[in-house]
Amino acid sequence: MSTLLEQLIEAFRVLPGVGGKSAQRMAYHVLERERAGGQHLAQVLAEAVVRIGHCARCRDFSESEVCHVCASASRDVDQLCVVETPADRLAIEQATGYRGLYYVLQGRLSPLDGIGPRELGLDRLSARLAEGEVRELIIATNPTVEGEATAHYLAQLARQQGVTPSRLAYGVPLGGELEYVDRGTLSHSFGTRSEIRE
Amino acid sequence: MSTLLEQLIEAFRVLPGVGGKSAQRMAYHVLERERAGGQHLAQVLAEAVVRIGHCARCRDFSESEVCHVCASASRDVDQLCVVETPADRLAIEQATGYRGLYYVLQGRLSPLDGIGPRELGLDRLSARLAEGEVRELIIATNPTVEGEATAHYLAQLARQQGVTPSRLAYGVPLGGELEYVDRGTLSHSFGTRSEIRE
Repeated sequence: MSTLLEQLIEAFRVLPGVGGKSAQRMAYHVLERERAGGQHLAQVLAEAVVRIGHCARCRDFSESEVCHVCASASRDVDQLCVVETPADRLAIEQATGYRGLYYVLQGRLSPLDGIGPRELGLDRLSARLAEGEVRELIIATNPTVEGEATAHYLAQLARQQGVTPSRLAYGVPLGGELEYVDRGTLSHSFGTRSEIRE
Repeated sequence: MSTLLEQLIEAFRVLPGVGGKSAQRMAYHVLERERAGGQHLAQVLAEAVVRIGHCARCRDFSESEVCHVCASASRDVDQLCVVETPADRLAIEQATGYRGLYYVLQGRLSPLDGIGPRELGLDRLSARLAEGEVRELIIATNPTVEGEATAHYLAQLARQQGVTPSRLAYGVPLGGELEYVDRGTLSHSFGTRSEIRE
């Protein structure tokens, strides 16, 4: 029978990137200095895992049936940006001035893991594109092998419904130094160079 | 009014070493893949911050009035090891074969922060040494300026009560390379070298 302190340390290990040593540090820190904060975390966490579900429109996390972005009247309904995860959606929302809507796959096509179009809700996405409101499908899956395969599939889906598919630009990051950019990125960036116009 | 998800991300920041980005990753990770684990963490955490207090004998964390180490009949009562934090106590317990008892200061002398002998419970420690059971006070405070000052104070306290004070050995860590050891440690280690006997 383990003590409550041991149970707490073990429970912290459910968090990403938290091993035994960090979990121990977290438990001690909360007990030594942050009891009120710890109590608040426990309460919000307990509420969140029960109350936060998925938006019926975009599949992002949402407390309500439809999330506040999808429910907003001020977003452009003719642009739909497809991302793999809620974190990707948040990153785009924070970094860009994009005013369209999103669609969160909550994954990527990965047949070996049993993740096909149905698991990503692509049937619902297809139906939505068929409605005719969306004119551009901005595909923002990650530039990995699986992300690219997913992007290819999505582009086909869009064309079938008469929607223009587009893809983010990939290349050397701004502020990056060519010397330290990985080969694949540099090669891709070199191959897709564009003419400098006046 | 922030959403529950935003509140959850904010709440995770109470943990040590967790900034905005890690907090976000934790929230998404729990919601995406670890709802049961998150629920368990919330429950154990809520219970721990309320039920875990301090042992009346050694001041370490304990669910009961007296912790299981202090309550154990198989520990040597003539040795008392003083450490700064519960984490230090755990480290010694796990690494060594020490069978004596502990005293956890829950801090170190730091007059500027208003932490004096009373805040560290040194009056109770003194009274305990006066009982005459303890014969050796093993001082295992950290080798920092404040830890050294605390060690000095504790050694005096021990001598006043006729108890032998001792201090951990400090020097080059085993397996360490001289080249990479910091100057202070190397200098101390050089100055406190000992004769090699047959």
